[in-house]
Amino acid sequence: MHHLVPDVPRGPLDVYRERASFNWKEMVLFLEGEENLEYKQYIFKTLENDPLFARQAGEDHSVEKKRELTFLRVKQLFRYNFLDQERLIENPWKMAVFNDCLSMYDCSLLVKYSLTTGMFGTTVSSSGSLRHKGYSEGSKDMTMFGCFSLTELSHGSNTRAMRTTATYDPSTQEFVINSPDFEAAKFWVGNLGKTATHTIVFAQLHTPDGVCHGLHSFVVQVRDPKTLLPIPGVLVGDIGVKLGQNGLDNGFALFTDVRIPRENLLNKTGDVTPEGQYVTPFKDPNKRFGATLGALSAGRLFILKISASNLRLAVTVALRFSATRRQFGPTDTEEIPVLEYQLQQWRLIPYLAAVYVLNHFYKSIFMSFLELQIGHMSRDNSIRQDQLGREIHAISCAIKPLAAWTAQRGIQECREACGGHGYLAMNRLGDLRDDNDPNCTYEGDNNVLLQQTSNYLLSCLQAKHIGGPPIQSPLESINFLDDYDRVMDSCFTATTMDQCMDPAVALAAYKWLVCFLLGASQTRLSQEKASGKEDFEARNNSQVYYCRSLALAYIEHMTLQSFCVMLGSEETPAGLRPVLTKLGALYGLWSLSNHMATLYQGGYFSGKNAAELVHTTILTLCSQLKDEAVALVDVIAPPDFILNSPIGKADGHLYKNMWSAVMQGNEVLQRPSWWKEFCSNKPQVGSLAAKL
Amino acid sequence: MHHLVPDVPRGPLDVYRERASFNWKEMVLFLEGEENLEYKQYIFKTLENDPLFARQAGEDHSVEKKRELTFLRVKQLFRYNFLDQERLIENPWKMAVFNDCLSMYDCSLLVKYSLTTGMFGTTVSSSGSLRHKGYSEGSKDMTMFGCFSLTELSHGSNTRAMRTTATYDPSTQEFVINSPDFEAAKFWVGNLGKTATHTIVFAQLHTPDGVCHGLHSFVVQVRDPKTLLPIPGVLVGDIGVKLGQNGLDNGFALFTDVRIPRENLLNKTGDVTPEGQYVTPFKDPNKRFGATLGALSAGRLFILKISASNLRLAVTVALRFSATRRQFGPTDTEEIPVLEYQLQQWRLIPYLAAVYVLNHFYKSIFMSFLELQIGHMSRDNSIRQDQLGREIHAISCAIKPLAAWTAQRGIQECREACGGHGYLAMNRLGDLRDDNDPNCTYEGDNNVLLQQTSNYLLSCLQAKHIGGPPIQSPLESINFLDDYDRVMDSCFTATTMDQCMDPAVALAAYKWLVCFLLGASQTRLSQEKASGKEDFEARNNSQVYYCRSLALAYIEHMTLQSFCVMLGSEETPAGLRPVLTKLGALYGLWSLSNHMATLYQGGYFSGKNAAELVHTTILTLCSQLKDEAVALVDVIAPPDFILNSPIGKADGHLYKNMWSAVMQGNEVLQRPSWWKEFCSNKPQVGSLAAKL
Repeated sequence: MHHLVPDVPRGPLDVYRERASFNWKEMVLFLEGEENLEYKQYIFKTLENDPLFARQAGEDHSVEKKRELTFLRVKQLFRYNFLDQERLIENPWKMAVFNDCLSMYDCSLLVKYSLTTGMFGTTVSSSGSLRHKGYSEGSKDMTMFGCFSLTELSHGSNTRAMRTTATYDPSTQEFVINSPDFEAAKFWVGNLGKTATHTIVFAQLHTPDGVCHGLHSFVVQVRDPKTLLPIPGVLVGDIGVKLGQNGLDNGFALFTDVRIPRENLLNKTGDVTPEGQYVTPFKDPNKRFGATLGALSAGRLFILKISASNLRLAVTVALRFSATRRQFGPTDTEEIPVLEYQLQQWRLIPYLAAVYVLNHFYKSIFMSFLELQIGHMSRDNSIRQDQLGREIHAISCAIKPLAAWTAQRGIQECREACGGHGYLAMNRLGDLRDDNDPNCTYEGDNNVLLQQTSNYLLSCLQAKHIGGPPIQSPLESINFLDDYDRVMDSCFTATTMDQCMDPAVALAAYKWLVCFLLGASQTRLSQEKASGKEDFEARNNSQVYYCRSLALAYIEHMTLQSFCVMLGSEETPAGLRPVLTKLGALYGLWSLSNHMATLYQGGYFSGKNAAELVHTTILTLCSQLKDEAVALVDVIAPPDFILNSPIGKADGHLYKNMWSAVMQGNEVLQRPSWWKEFCSNKPQVGSLAAKL
Repeated sequence: MHHLVPDVPRGPLDVYRERASFNWKEMVLFLEGEENLEYKQYIFKTLENDPLFARQAGEDHSVEKKRELTFLRVKQLFRYNFLDQERLIENPWKMAVFNDCLSMYDCSLLVKYSLTTGMFGTTVSSSGSLRHKGYSEGSKDMTMFGCFSLTELSHGSNTRAMRTTATYDPSTQEFVINSPDFEAAKFWVGNLGKTATHTIVFAQLHTPDGVCHGLHSFVVQVRDPKTLLPIPGVLVGDIGVKLGQNGLDNGFALFTDVRIPRENLLNKTGDVTPEGQYVTPFKDPNKRFGATLGALSAGRLFILKISASNLRLAVTVALRFSATRRQFGPTDTEEIPVLEYQLQQWRLIPYLAAVYVLNHFYKSIFMSFLELQIGHMSRDNSIRQDQLGREIHAISCAIKPLAAWTAQRGIQECREACGGHGYLAMNRLGDLRDDNDPNCTYEGDNNVLLQQTSNYLLSCLQAKHIGGPPIQSPLESINFLDDYDRVMDSCFTATTMDQCMDPAVALAAYKWLVCFLLGASQTRLSQEKASGKEDFEARNNSQVYYCRSLALAYIEHMTLQSFCVMLGSEETPAGLRPVLTKLGALYGLWSLSNHMATLYQGGYFSGKNAAELVHTTILTLCSQLKDEAVALVDVIAPPDFILNSPIGKADGHLYKNMWSAVMQGNEVLQRPSWWKEFCSNKPQVGSLAAKL
């Protein structure tokens, strides 16, 4: 296995590496598998050997330059064609590996590439028909550069309220695309700022009979691929600097009587005949709408993966830093690594556990999602297929917020835990945080998405109340709800730390928590309705402390459950099980501790000892895992070239690496170009002061 | 009062403004006072009328350009001399107003200016003697540009471990400054990167007899003011791009046999005679060390103010956005402002309350700090002066973390609550977050500082245990601890929401919480020691869940108590009291709700209703305050020019302002300079692919 898992360089981190209870290379192989590892190393090495992908830690590029570099790298990705069809069909998991590798290198690059090949190309294929083959082919060889225009300046979450129109003109057999005003400009569209030649536009479809058939998608050309100049009638441009992901050009477009052929309507869910008659296979417009937007749910799982990768890089940086940074000590002359402080362990190690749990969950949900996709393609109309679709929707709407927030908070904690050095751009924690931040917003605002999940759970409970069948679902995320009464009667019985070290303790508490919050949410909703509130308001008033907490508890339970299944599996090597069990237990108790007030409130916890036991176990697990932490990080860390963080390098030579990066900075020792401003034209103090 | 408080422009925000229960101009005058208002308007108008201070929302400057602009603006500040001695002596609060105005314009500018005039100039005066007058004078008219070199590459928090040396050479009556190696390079020093000519260096003082007398401070010239080129022996440069505050040039310096006159030792706490003998007025070296670093505590209060200002700008942006952004509604045709959603209220309005509470607390602690300073200057040796010093130290070490974190979390929440538009740089939430971030780290890492506060509280309790005098302190932040047993016997007795609307309910709960955590921390420490741990380890193992929570609870109690004193004061106008009371109650309960598990754990809360009552009251207060929110924001918002955020403008024309800012962007409609890269040299898909 040597050539697949390269050795780490020797250095100050060895002290911790030698304390690890497990073989880190065995863990890598267990988690990744030989074939995927080989593929991953191939991608990493290819990027590292290509000067176009070279970077300097902390380099200061203008936004224009960032966009140029990202574009050139995207172009190069077409040449490398890492994800060719053959590889993908043979092993669809390669898609995840590829995304992972690219997102660890640079989120903007992955997103830019995926928007044209996936979001544009794949959506055209899946929402259109044979007549659109030219577009999906064009996106494959970059003769076209695509994007996806849904959001408008004044509407994001409320997708139905989009105001762009597509009016059919039978005389020319064309649709005429119009933006009623600038508030309806398509906005935030990735790739549209500088590079897209074509876009999928979501617009209200109007037929000549004056009827509006709701939101449909159309392929619209926006720029001439020969010149990158806009098509007449399209006002297209760049929305400007963002907090992060500035390699990606987000743009806007305003349409004025832009005519496109009738065939450019992506017609899977509805079509217009040459004469102008609307036809659709869907009787219920709600279902048609749902099918149109269904493509978005894949994106949410993609975000789970990206978030987990961002967090993974951040904990790698922070834990390697903590194991080598020494500050204070029991005596004035001896300083200890900051990782030896309980506080530092408690701040960082739970996030390391979260990386392991989230990565595992992605693997498991990815496989289920594949199953769902295969069912779709084979037009599976079974009840199971429908249930699986609903369950995955509920999961994806909650896991995306959980992963995005966990990463966001974790990266910030890592930044702070590295002190000032974490605030230096070269160490990359800032870029990670800024690039991760939009994960909380795009593909559905986190808080809005969580409502989809709680609605699903409430509807399951309701179905049972009115005498429906037992609650169960293909992925078993809700099966325990069928035992609602029994679960609600349970309480916390652990009395020793040894017991709490078993992830089953946290898992059982989560089952109770989900049931309690589900019941409380249901009651709250009923009270709101009983007091005369309409459904809309009643739901809005049941989010805080109820439905929102419910959705989060549900998904935390699900991720932990999925991790426990892995722990119990025969395929999990015995030598890895102890450390993995600790990670699971820590993640479970640490997540659970955010809900401790509710556990007391509902009576699952009582007395002083329950909380104390949980706290002591968390701290003990952190303390045990701090000796495993460096090895656990070696397992998940990409090569130094990809990590691109002097304080996070595998050799652990913290200061040497930082100093070297500082010295390679741009004009680091030069006086500034504007030095004469210091030396001449000295200010006369108060010369411009006014009397008040 | 019209000319002092300019009207806000009419627009879509008026609907909310008209719902406010109070006169917002009366509130402005109550909080600021006429004189300060006038001063503030003068600063704001001066900046707005000076083209050097003009900005474009979302502009993309290189770091080099940012540093140049900030430097030119600092120079202009010398000309305006807003803070002349006369004004300051007449009304020292003007210092706070000035800092506030500048930090709202741009943190980097304030910090850069304050480092040379305050951190350098004032420290030279206060740590030196008459012989150093030339340096403090030089910093006043910018003939010198100063900075403060304490931190080294490998040491930050552990200041005593600094390794730079200053060895006295009696033959030339000079100190020789040396950095033993690059790990001891002074690092992170603000202004040192590009502009400082002089710095205060903290170094280990060695006398010819071979004795090391510990850390002392010296004035060292690093650059020639005529050329900005470094002095021979000084390797000085820029540490590079940071996550924020890039207008400020942070730098490093390595010293090789740099000779400075004997007189450059800042000799307040210790001096060396021409012959090389060390003399000090302090017998206890610990006290000498404390006095040297005492200057840092003013900085922590300064950070409280800056953090509160950052949060203030962020909530202004987010609440004005929320009152004008419409999304979804009870029917398909009617959309409501997102501020009408309970969830949005709950996410934002508590932070608005925090701004009011923190701003008030700053005012009150600033006055106490002045008293302390005056005592210092008049060499007051009373017990009260000593107690006041210790109490303010404990408070400043906890309020700085509380304010920095509240701002950090609040700004992130504001960013997310504004959805994608919050992620656009032009709307400034990113800059606010990034500029605020170092507040968590500099002037003492938040988590490290909190230990100072808990140590103070533990020592108070211990003194009482061994039969000391009653616990009381000049600012009364700990007086209730004297009632420890009675407080511990109390429990939550509120049964109605009306009762909980009184901030006294949260205040009483906080008293119990502080006592409980103090007792628990004490017990934990004793247990650790009883199990054989040394003091160092015992303390480290008592931070998480104990001492750290204790320090935070203590300062939250103190800020709330201070706000309650204001509410009860006769000077508080009757018309403002109801809304201020709601803000106090909301801040109190919302902060308290983070400790709810502990309240249950220790038995202060019991049963399901306690938590429910607190939650319901929080939501009700949010809902009542959402109609006051826009007016409350008008009270704290700076002029649009200072706020510099299209979605936060006072006229509320959200989309018009954003669209206009987008259109004024740099080359927004132009194709990129590298457009030919798109059109030529097309990638051949897979041409660079390798077989695995």
